[in-house]
Amino acid sequence: MKILLIGFGVVGRAFLRLLDERRGGLYRRFGLRPRIVGVTDSRGSAVSESGLETKQLLAAKYNHGTVAAVAGHGDTTTSIDALIADSDADLVVEATPSTLSAPQVAMSHFKFAFRSGKHAVTVNKAPLAVAMPALFELAAHNRVQFRFSGTVGGGTPILAFARECARGDEIVRIRAILNGTTNFILSRMHASGAAFEAALQEAVELGYAEADPSADIDGVDTATKIVILSNWVLGRPATLDDVKLSGIRGIATERIAEAAGRDSRVKLVGEINETLSVGPCEIRAGDPLDVPANLNAVTVTLRTSGDVTLVGPGAGGAETATAVLRDVLDIWRVMGGQA
Amino acid sequence: MKILLIGFGVVGRAFLRLLDERRGGLYRRFGLRPRIVGVTDSRGSAVSESGLETKQLLAAKYNHGTVAAVAGHGDTTTSIDALIADSDADLVVEATPSTLSAPQVAMSHFKFAFRSGKHAVTVNKAPLAVAMPALFELAAHNRVQFRFSGTVGGGTPILAFARECARGDEIVRIRAILNGTTNFILSRMHASGAAFEAALQEAVELGYAEADPSADIDGVDTATKIVILSNWVLGRPATLDDVKLSGIRGIATERIAEAAGRDSRVKLVGEINETLSVGPCEIRAGDPLDVPANLNAVTVTLRTSGDVTLVGPGAGGAETATAVLRDVLDIWRVMGGQA
Repeated sequence: MKILLIGFGVVGRAFLRLLDERRGGLYRRFGLRPRIVGVTDSRGSAVSESGLETKQLLAAKYNHGTVAAVAGHGDTTTSIDALIADSDADLVVEATPSTLSAPQVAMSHFKFAFRSGKHAVTVNKAPLAVAMPALFELAAHNRVQFRFSGTVGGGTPILAFARECARGDEIVRIRAILNGTTNFILSRMHASGAAFEAALQEAVELGYAEADPSADIDGVDTATKIVILSNWVLGRPATLDDVKLSGIRGIATERIAEAAGRDSRVKLVGEINETLSVGPCEIRAGDPLDVPANLNAVTVTLRTSGDVTLVGPGAGGAETATAVLRDVLDIWRVMGGQA
Repeated sequence: MKILLIGFGVVGRAFLRLLDERRGGLYRRFGLRPRIVGVTDSRGSAVSESGLETKQLLAAKYNHGTVAAVAGHGDTTTSIDALIADSDADLVVEATPSTLSAPQVAMSHFKFAFRSGKHAVTVNKAPLAVAMPALFELAAHNRVQFRFSGTVGGGTPILAFARECARGDEIVRIRAILNGTTNFILSRMHASGAAFEAALQEAVELGYAEADPSADIDGVDTATKIVILSNWVLGRPATLDDVKLSGIRGIATERIAEAAGRDSRVKLVGEINETLSVGPCEIRAGDPLDVPANLNAVTVTLRTSGDVTLVGPGAGGAETATAVLRDVLDIWRVMGGQA
């Protein structure tokens, strides 16, 4: 399987390292021999039909800041869209950062991939937030596969789990904690009585929050993941516009304290029932959704089997790379490979 | 898809009701039209190439105690093995009770199914405990599919979840609470200080435990589920003989109290690391495995992503029927149907 990797940040690099580590097992167990026929970063690209070496790519990135420095294969002039369209790759892995305010660039990558008959795996959820139904349609029209496990729950297989639940039973409701930054802030406020601004500051200093944490604290990140669950797990087309959204910006310490008095915690909960919504909710202490800051959790309420909950770490480059590999194996199976 | 149902107890009846309820959706979403071409119970069978009606089957069972009373289709002379061998069904659902001390009868059903080219789904874990590697081999040799989701976790998709975890990441360890009876007994002993015998008596009276609760309290039920996880999720062939086994029969109240003093609970834990084992272990309060009596829980430790935990109800006829349906859909996909 020939793979074109778009984006060579933390996840992209972790993905190539993972492929190298697991090379023997992937061939023995799944008959899969991945070959990296191209890699791009923000400054250029490296392309080779016979395959690129991870070692060379990492050295070029480390020593020269771009994969374009790979001797004999580097290039700084070709546009990524053109590279995607002209590549003979079977599959494009889109691993550029999720800039929720600017989905267009990654969207364009998918369009060029699908129209040239290439499957795609993405960890970039920005285009999914605004155009998931359209992207599904375009992929189906071009008879290619599209996967995005890493966009929800990092290495924790939330999408696959929820979809499996929906096969034999019927999903009545989904409730989920899907954002580490807000979970950290609210946990700090609960534990120390800190004000929102102080807890946010601490999250930024500890690296839990981005320099601009708006997408997290205003709930847009969680809403995007809820949109992905709705489309993929429930088959209900949705975009961000369909989510009733309220974040936790400036939430009062009194609200946290009142909840604590009722033996509950305030969490930012994404919910799907008749509608899609995101907002601060009280979760009883000991409820499966009462998870510490670094964990994601999703409770799927099934008509017959009741509540089923999955809990696991929600982020991290290496973790997300394992989700990309699951997606690649899923597409490999659809292409006729072993499962 | 033509289905032959072996066993018409709680799960078998719930499965037919579920198929009827979901008939429209199964066709629309998966292109699947299940047809029940035969049903057996302990007293006889009913067979029809053009398909049997759930209503008729339930009425015969209710009014006459056997499906053999279905007019025009009933029979009390043909052996189940012969019925399986001669049926033109695509798939056999084995839904007879799991008698761990007597795996031979269900084993024979699988052999006749596989040798006559039929796929099989089972909720009966007895044959899996003693012969899972051999059954895999026989199914592979005959190029048929074999599934058993309902044997671990009832309606909670534990097997599919754990297998999905193993695709992108590497499973380092599995720890699980998989038996409701022992979880109830140990929870009662913790909460009320009751002695083992009193808690067991209560479990029997409330219907949590069988009249002969040996398989539960001696750990054989949990061990069987650990064997299934080892074979299916890790690809490590194993039978009951490979499990280091200790149950909770006669466990001392002092042991429970000492654990409580360390803010821990004693639970019957099945574990897979280098070896397979089942025995009473201390679980910290608040650990994801610290689940109430009616829930199962499995924590999969992944090399990259760390601990991922699934929690859900572990038993119930209707719940287990949803697992059978997931298996049927899985085989339908392998047969070339929609997924």
